[in-house]
This record gives sequence, C-alpha cells and structure tokens, in this order.
Amino acid sequence: MLDNLLNHALACKTAHVTNRNERGAGMAADIAEQPDVYATLLEPAHITAIERVAKAVIEHKPQHVVFTARGTSDHAALYGTYLSEIRLNLAAGLASPSAITVFGARPDLSHALVVGVSQSGGSPDLTEVLRVARESGALTLAVTNNPESTLVQTAELSIDVSAGHERAVAATKTYTAELFALLLLIEGIKNGGSVPVKEFAEIPALARQTLESNDATAQAQRYRFARSMVTTGRGYSYPSAREAALKLMETSYLPALAFSGADLLHGPLAMTDPDVPVLAFVNSGRGGEAMKPVLERLHDQRADVVTVGPGGALAVPSVDERFSPLLEILPLQQLALSLALAKGEDPDAPRGLKKVTATM
Amino acid sequence: MLDNLLNHALACKTAHVTNRNERGAGMAADIAEQPDVYATLLEPAHITAIERVAKAVIEHKPQHVVFTARGTSDHAALYGTYLSEIRLNLAAGLASPSAITVFGARPDLSHALVVGVSQSGGSPDLTEVLRVARESGALTLAVTNNPESTLVQTAELSIDVSAGHERAVAATKTYTAELFALLLLIEGIKNGGSVPVKEFAEIPALARQTLESNDATAQAQRYRFARSMVTTGRGYSYPSAREAALKLMETSYLPALAFSGADLLHGPLAMTDPDVPVLAFVNSGRGGEAMKPVLERLHDQRADVVTVGPGGALAVPSVDERFSPLLEILPLQQLALSLALAKGEDPDAPRGLKKVTATM
Repeated sequence: MLDNLLNHALACKTAHVTNRNERGAGMAADIAEQPDVYATLLEPAHITAIERVAKAVIEHKPQHVVFTARGTSDHAALYGTYLSEIRLNLAAGLASPSAITVFGARPDLSHALVVGVSQSGGSPDLTEVLRVARESGALTLAVTNNPESTLVQTAELSIDVSAGHERAVAATKTYTAELFALLLLIEGIKNGGSVPVKEFAEIPALARQTLESNDATAQAQRYRFARSMVTTGRGYSYPSAREAALKLMETSYLPALAFSGADLLHGPLAMTDPDVPVLAFVNSGRGGEAMKPVLERLHDQRADVVTVGPGGALAVPSVDERFSPLLEILPLQQLALSLALAKGEDPDAPRGLKKVTATM
Repeated sequence: MLDNLLNHALACKTAHVTNRNERGAGMAADIAEQPDVYATLLEPAHITAIERVAKAVIEHKPQHVVFTARGTSDHAALYGTYLSEIRLNLAAGLASPSAITVFGARPDLSHALVVGVSQSGGSPDLTEVLRVARESGALTLAVTNNPESTLVQTAELSIDVSAGHERAVAATKTYTAELFALLLLIEGIKNGGSVPVKEFAEIPALARQTLESNDATAQAQRYRFARSMVTTGRGYSYPSAREAALKLMETSYLPALAFSGADLLHGPLAMTDPDVPVLAFVNSGRGGEAMKPVLERLHDQRADVVTVGPGGALAVPSVDERFSPLLEILPLQQLALSLALAKGEDPDAPRGLKKVTATM
C-alpha cells in the first residue's frame, strides 16, 4: 500500500498533479520529496543567501536569541534553541506570542536576535511579534517557505526554506526544510559567515536511505488499536519527539504525548504501562546516551518501547547527533501517514484543520 | 468520599500524622492546606525576604530572564515567563538544562537573571545550570521549598516558598506556593522593591472558597472511562492547562494533552471529537477572551468541553487574570485526586515515581 502510494507520489511529482482520488497521496508525495529539498538548500544560490544572513547576525552581535513559532514550526524553533545554545553559546528561548499580541507586552529586545519560523509566513501573531521586536531594536529574521509573506516583509532578514508547494495540510517537507535551514544558518554563524557545505553533502542521500529502509505499514498495523502513545527523546532529538507526537495527532487522531526523557521521569512515567506504547528517539550522540537511564526505567515499568535511531526498530543511519532530527522524523512521518490510512482517515485533509491558521 | 478525605486530612494536619490506610489522604491534606500556604507567604517575614530579592534584581538590571525547572515546577516557571514579559517588559524563556548539563554549552548569561524553580531544590541538573550561570556573571535565584537544598546553596539569591512538608508524591501545594512566590517577587520588582501586599489580601480566602465550591467527585465519575483528555488555556492560564494535564497523568494515569488555545488550532484540534473530553481554562481577562474563538472551533468539532473559570462547570471566582493560576488549578487537583480514587489508584504514591528525581 505504502509502496504504491510512494510510486504514485513520485509519478504525481513528475506530472505536477496530485490524484485526489487516492487518500494520502499528497502527504506521501511531500514526504518523498524531502531528500530533494535538502539537496536544493545545498545549492550555491541558497547557501549564498543563508551566508548573507549569517554575516548580518555576526555583525549585530546578539546577546540572546528569541524564537517565535506555532505548531510544527515550533518544533523547528526548538531545534534552533538547542543549536544556538550548544553551537553558539547564545542563550535561546521560545517566546509566547500572546504576551505581546494579547497582553501588549513590549519587552526590550534590543540585544536579541528574534527569529520567526512559519511555513506560510502568514500567522498574524508571529508577524506582530517581529514588528514589535524590530521596533525595539532587535535584529529580526523570518524563516519561511513563502518569500512573499507578511512575515518576510516585516523582518529585516529572511531565509526562504525553498521546500516548494506542500500538498497535505500536515506539514512534513516544510518542517525538515526549516530544520535544515536553521542548521545551515547556525553552522554558518559559527564558521564566521561561511557555511561548511561539505559537512552536509551526504544528508540528501542519507534521507533517501532512511525513507527507503523502513516498513511503516507494518509498524502502523501494530499501533492500529493503541489508545494513546508516548514519544520521548533528549537534546537534539527532543524536537523530533514533539513533532512525531503532533504528526500522529494531526493525521491519525491518536493522542500522543511528547516528553523530554528527563521530564518523563518527573511524573508522566506513572502513566506508562504495557498498554501505552512508547516511541523513544535514541540517537548516536550524547542525547541518545542520556536516554539510557530513561529506557531502563521504562523497562522496569514493562512499557512497550520501540526505538527510533541507529539499530532501532525504526532505523535511522548513525550521524552526528546535530543531524539526527533531519533523518529520524522521516519514518515517523511515514508511520503517521500509514496509521491514518489504516484507520481509514485522509491525512491530506484532517478534520477541522486549515493550512494557514490565523491566531492572535 | 472527598469530604471525608478532606476532614480526615485536616485531622491529620493537626496530628502531623497521615493515616496511610486511607488512600489519597496525603494528597487531600496537601490540597486542603493551600489557603494557609498563601496566607503564610503574605506574613511580614516572608514579604521582607521577597522584597530583599526584588531589590537585588532591580539593582542588577537584567536584560532578560531565563527560567530553569522540571516537571510541575516547569509550569510555575512558565507562569514566571508570562509575568516577566507582561509585567516587567523583560524577555523571558525556559532553558533546556540539557544544553548545559549534557552538551556542555556555556552561554553568556552575564545580562540575565537566571531562576531555578524546584520544590526539592535537589535536582542536580538545575543546580548545574545555576552554577554555570553564576560563573558567567548572571544574577541567580533559587525558588524552592527547601532552604537547605543545594540549589539554594548554589544561587546568589533564594526564596523559600514555605509550603511545609508535602505528603504526596504529586506536587500540589508546592506548585501553588511557587506560583505565589513568583507573583509576589515580580510585582515587588515592578513596584520598586516593595510588594503591594494589599492587592493579594483576599487570595487565601478566595482559595478556600474555590476548594469548597466544587464537587470533584461528581466530575471524576464523568471522566471515569475517558481514554484521554485535552486541556487548554491561553496567557496566564496556559500554565494551568499544562499542570492540570500533568496532575491527571501522574495520579490517574490518564493521557492528558495540554495545548495553548492558539496551538490547539494549529494541528491537535484534528484529534478532538466527542470522545476526547476537553477541559478549557477560561479566565475573566484577556486570556479568557482569547479562548472564545477556540471554544467556537471546539463546538464546531462537537467536542465535549468543560470550562474552568468564573461561571464554569468547575467554578473559580472572578479575579484579575494574573491571579487566576493561583485558584483555577485547585479544582483540577481535586479532580485528579478523585479520579485516581475512583480508579482504585493511590495518588499519594503513583507507580514508578519518586519525590526527588535526579536527572542530568
């Protein structure tokens, strides 16, 4: 079924037409394109654009970084906070837009880099946060998939993640494109304004390998009657756990709870038992190492644990853990798609959702 | 049943003994003490101690605030970020301890106020974050229920939330004591170093009224067979939604998913249907107002919505919305306790949990 869909998706891509008669064809096509999206971002024109932004950030010397985002993009922003803190030694956090948009807060952001992340660039609340931040003297950056958007018009700097039109409502390729754009930017800043492109050369091929090596249909059968699910990871893989949970909720309506491995031990662990399956992201770096005591405790609780990572039931190639989020979310996107199809749902158009959500 | 427990709890409080033969007696006693804990924090000795910290913060002139916490205390810290941004116009965020403790990040925090919030003050990762922050020149503050803890010894400043010994593993009175201590501190900073005590004089009585006016046992019966739950709120009430979800998970093993009202519209709304009950915190301020479009969308989805707030099915007095979190969590603590008892669980000692959780 999934193979059919993927083949179908590739056909659609060539024809620039999505067959709406086949459920999930749009999401399958979006998922399949991710290796190409990574390759696109590595093209000289895109790297040059990112390096321009990196140089502007270096010149501005921000003292801290404030990210603002909603939904899936919030998880890309979370990845950005880890990268900023670990790679640039810059304190970084996620802003609650409502403090500014609903409560009229006017924080002094003159020493901050304020980054809005949004696939559509159309959220009025994020635009308002960037407008207020720019007024207070912050360096503002929009990371979006729409260079014509109001977010881009509002920010001083912008990066086009160049993922192309996304067919499904549930974001997949725009998420990973945001991740990769943030990684390239931050490594460019770290490297004095020049992106060390060679470090990333294998990413498109590794993404293709990851997509081809997992049988999401079989995994989906296993979770067909799960009533809820827990996802967990640490460090760079914590955003993956968050995004995996959101994708399962959006497409398969499965209540999925994401916790950092550390937070899981502080309370929600009580909830895990053999009937609440756990998806644990265990990468090959320090974040994966820090998951070991969590896995032991889950084992003590007789939890049903499936690991995502090198050697895991959902297999991901072993890479520098900074790169893990670019790959480890791919089998989870496939799982969310397959589970939705197994339940007879249409992952391309989940009930009650719109592509651009306007909140203030 | 609950009345019996509360009476029993009051008796225990006098005798300083908890009858371990009655399940949930410890948690019931902790819950019942919260009005007294609020009153304690308003005593001159505690106010003077908080004002000392407020004056030190004013003198240091931080450019931003970084909170660090785990579990329940993370939700108190989240409340602190809203207060800092809205009341002090200071950019504020929650730090991921692992960036420092697992990945060795050494962010420059010399312009920051770094606040560790922890009931036990015993988490080695938070202590490490405060140690690193202090070394880099940050002003550091420990907010804990244990003035002898390593967190207090590590930080330059500290506030004792003075909640007394907490009997149950699931935190209740230490959570609300943290909330109130942070509110008093931030209003003290806003007011030039002097806490406007009169503004808060009614809080203990309002807390007592809230505890007495709700029939959590009846609500618990209604959720006895719920398979999962969604909690939601905006602004100051978003931390309440997060804490309510955690309390339900810890004590009743009910998978409960918390979303800000805005984020709910960006994806997880797909998951809500008549079989996934929603608890919506709707306070009487701008956060409650901003929940109205969320409630409309939930209505369109035919979701089962119970509101928590003035005039809600779980009733909370109408107060300045800054104070809502101090009151609106109380009926949810009672609900978590009652639901755990209805399921035959022991909320005083949830499976797999310890009072102090050591993570790095």
